Parts: sequence; C-alpha cells; structure tokens
Amino acid sequence: MTQALGEFIGTFILVLLGDGVVAGVSLNKSKAQGAGWIAIAIGWGLAVTLGVYTSAYLGPAHLNPAVTIGFAAIGKFPWSSVIPFIIAQMAGAFLGAVVVWLQYYPHWAETKDQAAILGTFATGPAIRKPWANFLSEFVGTFVLVFALLAFTRGKWTAGLNPIGVGLLITAIGFSLGGTTGYAINPARDLGPRLAHAVLPIANKGDSDWGYSWIPIVGPILGGIVGAVCFTLLP
Amino acid sequence: MTQALGEFIGTFILVLLGDGVVAGVSLNKSKAQGAGWIAIAIGWGLAVTLGVYTSAYLGPAHLNPAVTIGFAAIGKFPWSSVIPFIIAQMAGAFLGAVVVWLQYYPHWAETKDQAAILGTFATGPAIRKPWANFLSEFVGTFVLVFALLAFTRGKWTAGLNPIGVGLLITAIGFSLGGTTGYAINPARDLGPRLAHAVLPIANKGDSDWGYSWIPIVGPILGGIVGAVCFTLLP
Amino acid sequence: MTQALGEFIGTFILVLLGDGVVAGVSLNKSKAQGAGWIAIAIGWGLAVTLGVYTSAYLGPAHLNPAVTIGFAAIGKFPWSSVIPFIIAQMAGAFLGAVVVWLQYYPHWAETKDQAAILGTFATGPAIRKPWANFLSEFVGTFVLVFALLAFTRGKWTAGLNPIGVGLLITAIGFSLGGTTGYAINPARDLGPRLAHAVLPIANKGDSDWGYSWIPIVGPILGGIVGAVCFTLLP
Amino acid sequence: MTQALGEFIGTFILVLLGDGVVAGVSLNKSKAQGAGWIAIAIGWGLAVTLGVYTSAYLGPAHLNPAVTIGFAAIGKFPWSSVIPFIIAQMAGAFLGAVVVWLQYYPHWAETKDQAAILGTFATGPAIRKPWANFLSEFVGTFVLVFALLAFTRGKWTAGLNPIGVGLLITAIGFSLGGTTGYAINPARDLGPRLAHAVLPIANKGDSDWGYSWIPIVGPILGGIVGAVCFTLLP
Repeated sequence: MTQALGEFIGTFILVLLGDGVVAGVSLNKSKAQGAGWIAIAIGWGLAVTLGVYTSAYLGPAHLNPAVTIGFAAIGKFPWSSVIPFIIAQMAGAFLGAVVVWLQYYPHWAETKDQAAILGTFATGPAIRKPWANFLSEFVGTFVLVFALLAFTRGKWTAGLNPIGVGLLITAIGFSLGGTTGYAINPARDLGPRLAHAVLPIANKGDSDWGYSWIPIVGPILGGIVGAVCFTLLP
Repeated sequence: MTQALGEFIGTFILVLLGDGVVAGVSLNKSKAQGAGWIAIAIGWGLAVTLGVYTSAYLGPAHLNPAVTIGFAAIGKFPWSSVIPFIIAQMAGAFLGAVVVWLQYYPHWAETKDQAAILGTFATGPAIRKPWANFLSEFVGTFVLVFALLAFTRGKWTAGLNPIGVGLLITAIGFSLGGTTGYAINPARDLGPRLAHAVLPIANKGDSDWGYSWIPIVGPILGGIVGAVCFTLLP
Repeated sequence: MTQALGEFIGTFILVLLGDGVVAGVSLNKSKAQGAGWIAIAIGWGLAVTLGVYTSAYLGPAHLNPAVTIGFAAIGKFPWSSVIPFIIAQMAGAFLGAVVVWLQYYPHWAETKDQAAILGTFATGPAIRKPWANFLSEFVGTFVLVFALLAFTRGKWTAGLNPIGVGLLITAIGFSLGGTTGYAINPARDLGPRLAHAVLPIANKGDSDWGYSWIPIVGPILGGIVGAVCFTLLP
Repeated sequence: MTQALGEFIGTFILVLLGDGVVAGVSLNKSKAQGAGWIAIAIGWGLAVTLGVYTSAYLGPAHLNPAVTIGFAAIGKFPWSSVIPFIIAQMAGAFLGAVVVWLQYYPHWAETKDQAAILGTFATGPAIRKPWANFLSEFVGTFVLVFALLAFTRGKWTAGLNPIGVGLLITAIGFSLGGTTGYAINPARDLGPRLAHAVLPIANKGDSDWGYSWIPIVGPILGGIVGAVCFTLLP
C-alpha cells in the first residue's frame, strides 16, 4: 500500500514536470516557447529523476507499467502487485496532467494548434506508420529496461541512481525519441490522454485514440523483451 | 547569527548568478544575448546550487522565505529564527541585484526594452491573470518544498544535495516556469524589485508593484501546503 | 569471452544512441530535427556513458579499438585479447547502426540529403584536407586516452567513472569535434559505414570509402601516443 | 616540480578544450558553428573540469594565476611557488592555443572575421569601457575564488570537486560572462593572446594589446579580494 502510494506520487511528479516541459515549450505566450527538443529531452530526464527522488523512500519507484511488467516477467517483482502498481501509476499520471492544465490555464486559449495541445498531454508519431511507430516504442523501452537492470549490476553510488535514470531518459529522448516522442511508458501516455479527453481544455481537438494502443503495447513488449534479454547474459 | 550570515551570503550568490543569467540573455550587446530559456533554466539551477554550496557550511542554506516558513510550519525549523532568516535573505537578494546592475553597467543604456530590464530583476506574468499567476507560483513552490523534504528522506550522497536542489530548480524552470518566470521565492523577487525601484538604472520603467504580491504570497502558501502534505505521508 | 560480450553490448548501445542522436537531429520530419550541435555533443556523451554502464559489469568497457590498442601499447591490457575485443566492438557498432536504420525507418525516404544520411552513420570532414583531418582525429583521441588514464589515477568516486567518461566525450565534441565530427573511435566509424554500405537505405549515396582510413588510423595513432605520453609522467 | 608539471598539463587541457569550443562555435564551416553561448558556457565548464581531472593527481590543479595568487594572499599556498606555477600555467595555456590553431587549421582561411579569430584565443569586451570591463572581471573572479574556498569547507564528495568547479565556471559564464567573455584567469587570456600574436594564423588581425591588462589585473585583484573576504567569515 505504501509502495503503491509511492508510485502514485512519483508518477504524478513525473507527468507534472514531463508534460509541463512540453507545455512550456509548445504553448503560445509561454516564456519557454521555442526552447525546442533540447529542453524537452533535458526536462523529461529531470522529470523522471525527480519523480524517482520524491517517491523512492516509499517504494521501488518504477513509475512505469512497462518497468513493472518487465521486472515481473523475470521474477524481480511479484505479479500480485502488478495491478495495484499500474492503477497507482495511471492515477498519478492522470492527476499530473490535470495540474499541467491548471498550471498553464490561460495559455490554452491562446494556442490554436490542436496538435500542439494534444502533444502536451500524449505522444504522437512524426510519420504515421503503425509498425514503424510500434518498433520505435519497442526499441526505446527495450533500452530503458535493459539499462535499468544493468544499473543494478553496476556500481552507481546508491544515492545517484535517480540521476542515472534521468540521464538514460534524456539519452533515449535525444537518440530514439524523434520518431514517436518516446512514450516508453504506458501510464505516461494513457493517463494524460484520458485527461485530454475529459478536461474542458480550450481549443482542444480529438484525442487520437486510434494511435493510443502503440504507446501501450510497444513499451510493454519492449520492456518484457529487454528484461528477458538481460537475464540471458552472464 | 552565523546561520543568518549564511542566508545572506547564499542568497547574495543566488541572486547575483540568477538575475545575472537573465541579464546576460536579455540585455542588448551581451555576448549571451538570445541564449534563451535553456540558458535561463540551467543558469538559475546553477545559481541555486552555488548559493547553497557557498553557504551550507554556515547554516541550513534555505535561501528562500517560502522554504523557511514551510519548514517552520511543520516544526522542522524554529519560528523564532524565521524573521532573522527572512531579513538576511532579503538583504542578500537586494545586494545581489545591485551587483548585477554594476556587472552589466554599460548594457542598460543600450537596452531600450523596459520589460526586459525589469525582467532582469523581478518576475512577471506571461499572461496577466492574477488567480492563474498565483496558482502557478503556488504549484511551483509546492513541488519545490515537497521535493526538498523528500530529499531528506532519500539517499542523496550527502555532498551532492546542492546539485540535487539545482536540478530541481532547473526542472521547475523548464516545466512550470513558462507562465510567470518561477519566482518560487519571495526574497528572490522582492529584493531585486526593490533594487530596481531605487537604483538609477538607465532606461528603466516602473517596478510593477501591482504584481509584486503574487510572487510573495503564492510561494509562501505553496511552501506551507507542500510541507504539510509531505508530513501526511508515511 | 564474457569481456568480449561486454564490448559487443556496450558498443551496440553506444552506436545505437550515438548514431541515433545524429539521425534525430538530421533526418527530415524527426521531432528532434534542428536541435543541432548541442544535442549531438550531449547525446554522444550520454551514449558513451550508457554504453559503459550497460557493459561495465561484464568487462573493462573500452568500447573503442583506439582505447584497447592504446592500453595494450603501455602494458595495461593483454595483446592477446586485442583482436577479440576489436571484433566484438565492430560487431556491436554494426548492429547498433542497423537498429538506428530500423528505428528511423520511415524518415530515410523523407530525407533527400545524401550527406545527412551518410552523416548519421559515419563521420566526414567539414573541410576535406587529409593531413588536417587526420590531425583532428589524432588530437581528439590523444586527449581521450590521456584523460582516461588520468581518471584512473584520480579520485572519481568509482561508480561515477561512466559519467566522467561521458563528460569527456561531450567536451571533445564541443571543443575538437567541429572539424571532422570526432570519430575518435575506429569501430564507431567503420561499423556503421559498413552498415550504410550494405543496408537498403532509401535515398542513400556512396559510403565515402576514400575518407574511411582517417577515422581508423588517426584514432589508433592518437590513442597510442596519448597512452605513451601519459606513462612518461611521474 | 611535479606540481608545476601538473599546472602545465592541466592548463594545456583547459585552454585546448576551452579555446577549442570557441573555435568550434565561431569559425566558418565548423560543424559546431552557431551553437552559441550555451555551447560556450558548457564547453568551458567541461574544459576546466577535465583540466583539473587530468592534473589533480600531480598537484593542487589551480590552473589559474588568480587562484594561485589569491590562495597565497591568505596563506593557503606558499609565495615561493607562485612564480613557478604562473610560468607553468602560462606555458600550458600558450601550448593549448597552438594546438587549437592546428586542430582547426583549414578553418582560419575560411573565416574572414578578424574579431571572431581573436575571440577564439583571447577575451574582449562586449562594450569597450575599461572601468566596467575591469569590474566585470573582478566580480567574476571574486565569485570564483570565494566559491572555491567555500567548496573546501563544504561536503563535496572528494572525487567530485572537479565537477563542482566546472559547474561554477559554467555558472559564471552564463551569469557574469556576457560582458567581457569571462577570462577570470590571466593565463587563459594572455597565453593564447601571445599565441595569436606570434602564430601565422590566416586572416588574423591585431591582438588588441590595449585591452590585455584588464583580464590580467581584474582577475588577480578579484581573486585576492575574494580570498580575503572568505577569511573574514566564521
């Protein structure tokens, strides 16, 4: 229960700061408008670092169903806790997106671009091609889970693990994120997409539910395969 | 007394480097002109890291009345020291702003934009809407104080806490700062605004006192609520 | 054998993330397009940090024939393992480039610039002048190997060595990379150039084999001389 | 003698990477051209971090006459070693500038802007006004030496001191460097200016000796006053 609370808080902070940086960079009249992909890649990395830091004293701080399921698949996490964790992650992500909407409240009415508004909440493809988009999310999450497991075998000074995880997210953003916006986390995409669908956001368009399965299934499969591959190594 | 001296020195460094980066990015003929929001978010994070580092051997290095009051509200800091700390923080912030004025002395006369000059000293809203601006400062400082308290429960290698705090400030800048310029610290805003009002700065306009209560009250309330919320957790 | 597997995995991650950031910044319709040299220098630094981290529990994580040969030249690494290490590094680099091709699959058809496509895989000179290009690669790798050896004499907290190496790569990228794109690693250049030659990449041009000896011979000689110079010091 | 060798090597690396990033950002046809002040501030910070790291096992790694003299002024460094240290720092800085010239050899002929070429070697004022330029260098070096002394009283994990110093340099660059290009180090400015004067650099103009006293006297006085102020604290 405490651990699920940790997932809720950590994923709330993660999406508040993560969707927040996209809002800051994309919405009209924001002082950060135009800061571009460098800001997004660094901002998302910091969002994950701080999500982990604010919740790691309560639990394992997965903050990501693909990590939870991947770890369960190789016996590093109990299957019985998977559903409570995912519910907590989804709820935290939803609440984070609600607070982003409030934080930037006057800016939605100033922003006419529906794709920019949706992009603040959920990911979308640079070029819409389902198998390629799926592969992108698969590869990104494969690298994420594989590297997270390698970290546990490495020699990070314990207290710096959250910084290491943030650098990993920033690297994935710079290197693998240009294609689909690197959800690599079903809760990070689905929670805010739900918020986009239900909140009365000025100028919003549709929530692109046709694409929404890719940032769910791609990360989950990528996380499982990444975890299994890691266990095949000595 | 030594601790208050630490607050004075740390907040002096914080505002010198923090307002300094805004001056560098905004003022005409500055070599850093146009470096934009990425420079501002990173520069302010470093300003806080270095403010903490240069003063942490003298005291707790709050450097922010919202942190001092938030910590006092939950019994982590004695109420009797709150006023001396705030006076030291305000004095340090004022002096930091004076030195920024001297450091960039020839650049004020070259800068005709009164908003850019005021923005070097104090924060202002991207879209003027008091309740939304207040909420932005509230949320930013909520996250700041909540995360600072989580850090004390976490496992940061002790000596890296100042870096963690700087990363937190950079994250808030990227993700939550686009709306009001993230004062999240009453001394950081009011001290330099006073300096702007009294110094004979070339080309300056008015000091926008009508807005000045928001970066005072928003951070103080956000800090108190963030601290109280943290104590509700296990 | 385990160590060579570590070289394979680490160099795979290094090239996947390293060539990935160039693809993200260069290819048409990528969301990271235009993020420029700052993204490339930071992205490559993170690629090396994470390549080292995901493989350092299996072996020494050279991930670079110039490091392997340089260390062998001064007796820090057995000559008998040099060939297996280089084969593993080359194979990992080739596979990394293949996955970059798949990750950005729909973007190649959208990119008409053959130099940008080749540049995603292999390095090339800003100004084609063989002796100067050779010198650039020599100097960059001299600094790399000299500094890596100094790190082993210094006091990096053990677990942070991968971060130190990444900062070194980022620094070389910013400071010495503008001339030839800083291969400073024969496997990083030759493996992906082979992939460029054999893969059916849309819109690709020739693989510029005439230049390919420079990012092989320059780094190897620079690494040997850097290592030898270091041993001359007290 | 070993310590002076450390100063020579460290200052060589510092200027090679530091002047290198300015060359990369400024010279025509460089792949890093236009990366701007963010690259310069980060690149110089990394240059100092790596200069310290590659030399810290040989000595105290001042790499800066203003630090050496400032520390001597408060009895933290023997006056008898000041001259040998400064000679070693100057020689290292000169050699670093020579290698930058070779590294970017074909790019000088492509660059017609004489100010850009001089700026690659030595600093210059954004607005020429001697007392203000002097004050800028004084303040920057005051902060540098004051903070370095505070670090020794703080709790940096020992092995991370070089990273802390680099963050400090980056912060000074972002926040105080827009006015004069932040020499804050007489060797870093005078050594490369001498190289500019004597090397047969294509398209070079004069070496602006009229300005050259400011980045010497300003940093030395700033360093002394910063050191003395620090000793006045408890």
